[in-house]
Amino acid sequence: MPLLERLAEILEPSDLLTAAGDTAPYLTDWRKLYHGEALAVVRPRSTEQVSRVVALAAEAGVSIVPQGGNTGLAGAATPRSNGNNLVLSLERMNKIRALDAANYTITVEAGCILQQVQEAATQADRHFPLSLAAEGSCRIGGNLSTNAGGIAVLRYGNMRDLTLGLEVVLPDGRIWNGLRALRKDSAGYDLKHLFIGAEGTLGVITAAVLKLFPRPRERASAFVAVASLDAALALLGRMRAASGDGLTSFEMIPRVALEKAIAHVPGSFDPFPDPHDAYLLIEMTSSRENSGITAVAEEALAAAMEDGLVREATIAQNETQAAALWFLREAVVEAQRAVGASIKHDVVVPLSAVPAFIREATAAVEAAVPGIVVYAFGHLGDGNVHFNLLQPPGMKPEAFLAEMGRLNRLVHDVSARHHGSISAEHGLGQLRNKEVRLYKPAIEFELMERIKLAIDPKGIMNPGKVL
Amino acid sequence: MPLLERLAEILEPSDLLTAAGDTAPYLTDWRKLYHGEALAVVRPRSTEQVSRVVALAAEAGVSIVPQGGNTGLAGAATPRSNGNNLVLSLERMNKIRALDAANYTITVEAGCILQQVQEAATQADRHFPLSLAAEGSCRIGGNLSTNAGGIAVLRYGNMRDLTLGLEVVLPDGRIWNGLRALRKDSAGYDLKHLFIGAEGTLGVITAAVLKLFPRPRERASAFVAVASLDAALALLGRMRAASGDGLTSFEMIPRVALEKAIAHVPGSFDPFPDPHDAYLLIEMTSSRENSGITAVAEEALAAAMEDGLVREATIAQNETQAAALWFLREAVVEAQRAVGASIKHDVVVPLSAVPAFIREATAAVEAAVPGIVVYAFGHLGDGNVHFNLLQPPGMKPEAFLAEMGRLNRLVHDVSARHHGSISAEHGLGQLRNKEVRLYKPAIEFELMERIKLAIDPKGIMNPGKVL
Repeated sequence: MPLLERLAEILEPSDLLTAAGDTAPYLTDWRKLYHGEALAVVRPRSTEQVSRVVALAAEAGVSIVPQGGNTGLAGAATPRSNGNNLVLSLERMNKIRALDAANYTITVEAGCILQQVQEAATQADRHFPLSLAAEGSCRIGGNLSTNAGGIAVLRYGNMRDLTLGLEVVLPDGRIWNGLRALRKDSAGYDLKHLFIGAEGTLGVITAAVLKLFPRPRERASAFVAVASLDAALALLGRMRAASGDGLTSFEMIPRVALEKAIAHVPGSFDPFPDPHDAYLLIEMTSSRENSGITAVAEEALAAAMEDGLVREATIAQNETQAAALWFLREAVVEAQRAVGASIKHDVVVPLSAVPAFIREATAAVEAAVPGIVVYAFGHLGDGNVHFNLLQPPGMKPEAFLAEMGRLNRLVHDVSARHHGSISAEHGLGQLRNKEVRLYKPAIEFELMERIKLAIDPKGIMNPGKVL
Repeated sequence: MPLLERLAEILEPSDLLTAAGDTAPYLTDWRKLYHGEALAVVRPRSTEQVSRVVALAAEAGVSIVPQGGNTGLAGAATPRSNGNNLVLSLERMNKIRALDAANYTITVEAGCILQQVQEAATQADRHFPLSLAAEGSCRIGGNLSTNAGGIAVLRYGNMRDLTLGLEVVLPDGRIWNGLRALRKDSAGYDLKHLFIGAEGTLGVITAAVLKLFPRPRERASAFVAVASLDAALALLGRMRAASGDGLTSFEMIPRVALEKAIAHVPGSFDPFPDPHDAYLLIEMTSSRENSGITAVAEEALAAAMEDGLVREATIAQNETQAAALWFLREAVVEAQRAVGASIKHDVVVPLSAVPAFIREATAAVEAAVPGIVVYAFGHLGDGNVHFNLLQPPGMKPEAFLAEMGRLNRLVHDVSARHHGSISAEHGLGQLRNKEVRLYKPAIEFELMERIKLAIDPKGIMNPGKVL
């Protein structure tokens, strides 16, 4: 029996999409950089259904492309164009299976939207700290598969660090139930770490046990103009120590990004009368009531100002002011779209190398494309720089985008000199999977390929991605 | 040329031990439970030497048994008795290669003693938080290979969570340099997590990049008598929140353990006039000066006393008093040796299941061996119970130890009912590698075996351990 007929036997009609109008949204990524083809889009409702779908596809020699909220930035969830694929959307598996407040854990299905998990935690007086721009639509399976990062990694770690257990449908359709909710476990190889960050190339993650934390009750948000990026690094150490390691976010915003936000995103504003080269959005949180955290932030910033690290600083006095500062951080991302073509990089280097990386990469791209606008913002607290490049004013977008390969090479060569990585939190997908071979030792890909062959000998799972 | 002659060409004479008197300490574990044989003990001084030793051994079909401080509790570092092994001690590779204070990282060789790493961090005004009883003699390579835990996991995580990068000699002698010092990295499968916790069965870890933290400047240590273990769990949540998640240790000590310590370990004392069933040693730390952390602890404990969770509490008023409380925690471990034969378990269950686990496991073993003494202490903050059993007074040690298999089964069956693991932080080695098959799904071992075959196809690395 043909595959589609067999799938029709196990799925509701509305969970098996084949009409072009129905499948179209699943066949391209949200930036519309990639377009693929698929025999069908399937939307199973249970782990058992995923298991049966994968088994049937494996038998038929059809590839599986797992998809979550389809908000990825590296094309990992878009199928190849040869069409011999099934897109397996996890969106109908969106149940929170359990929440154990005393164990500080939540067990969720892969199709849960990140924000849904955050809210469930809050309702139980707990905190799920992963936070990123797409949190209203990205799904946990995608967060796991790309090892998502975001704005609170400095304190809480990446998605990988937030995960205690997984349930995975393997490439032959069998289910591995590794949904352990344990803080310690040294009983054999830690298989969950293979599937996290594998972008669906080793199996389909269907559920996970995630860590929760005490709910933050107070926060101090500050917008700070720093004397230099080196000064920002010194400030980071002071703020970590002063806050009792309660520093949650330490975001870097260059002057050009603040200017573009003010020019293009209504509601943006300059917090200070004079311009400065570099700004930080800093946030400390505490789960303690009457924590005095705002006073701590004030004191630390005042001392840093006296010592010449900080030029100006403003601390939010209430939630409205804090929200306004975070609005600026989001406007910086938003504003890029208004200024024409951009070329994005998701670089990470050791914190101590961030100033040199930005300096050297800026010099390299400015020499290559005169008039190019370097728009380098990101998560200074963990060394992750979104080193984005905007087209020179007046240049044709196509002409600028034609430089992408050369500019990627220049930027990533500098990050390599500083022992960085070309994908901090977006994954490799089909965007960086070839390029990355220039920057990691060959032996590493050999090991990855051996593992791929060991777990997915038929090469069913998301071919053409990562490897 | 025979293997030993070829080894003699690349190693100093003092780094190639073959005389029985020289090799003996390397051929048994420190509890003297296991004894093995080896062609030689090699002590290479560099990654290159490790690489050459492993390549020669692989060519000769001789197995490699990596060994660190030889303080393991599961026999993973003791060779098999067939003798076709080399013990590869990392003890001569004990250099701290780099410390990057701004990046909060330290790069160390596998033979560094844990305490040496702690001290190097402190000297740079940083903190390396892994802490366990053997810290004065255990080595980083062993900590990595067993994914060591200890007394600060609640706040800082296990060794796995503290590791950013690894250098590994693979089973064919090639070197994988994965010494990345990055807080985020989503560029392919995360290979380091395969080698961490693999107990030397996939390769020889020769160096690692570890995370550092702000140095704690103040601590509040409290000894607390709780109304019950359920009350202790409720207190855990309160103390985490009240401390701004600065709770570092939350150790559980039963009455029987305190009594044995007082009876057998000079310097032990009862902090309270009346006896109580269950005690906690709680520690909060802060990197902030004038953190008010002692007042926070006092307030939280006073409220918990009012609410009936806490019966009595004493908070150390200075470092001497804090050290005296921690001495009690160590005396609890020490005292076991004075009371005859003991059977140890390193169980972990979800925190919420700890009270039921202890209740049910206690009932099971008391029914099986009348008069048995349950000595269940450990890291309540992360669900890790050292559920140790002491022989009934008057029973012959050999008669008691003959019950080990039956008692293991009873205890581990209860932990399995509560979705626990039979090895929280000690690893499997040769102590639990067969037993664990009763408690994890077969598909998990199939995956582990496929990975083993993919990475170590000749089966050179530490055979007979883990798998």
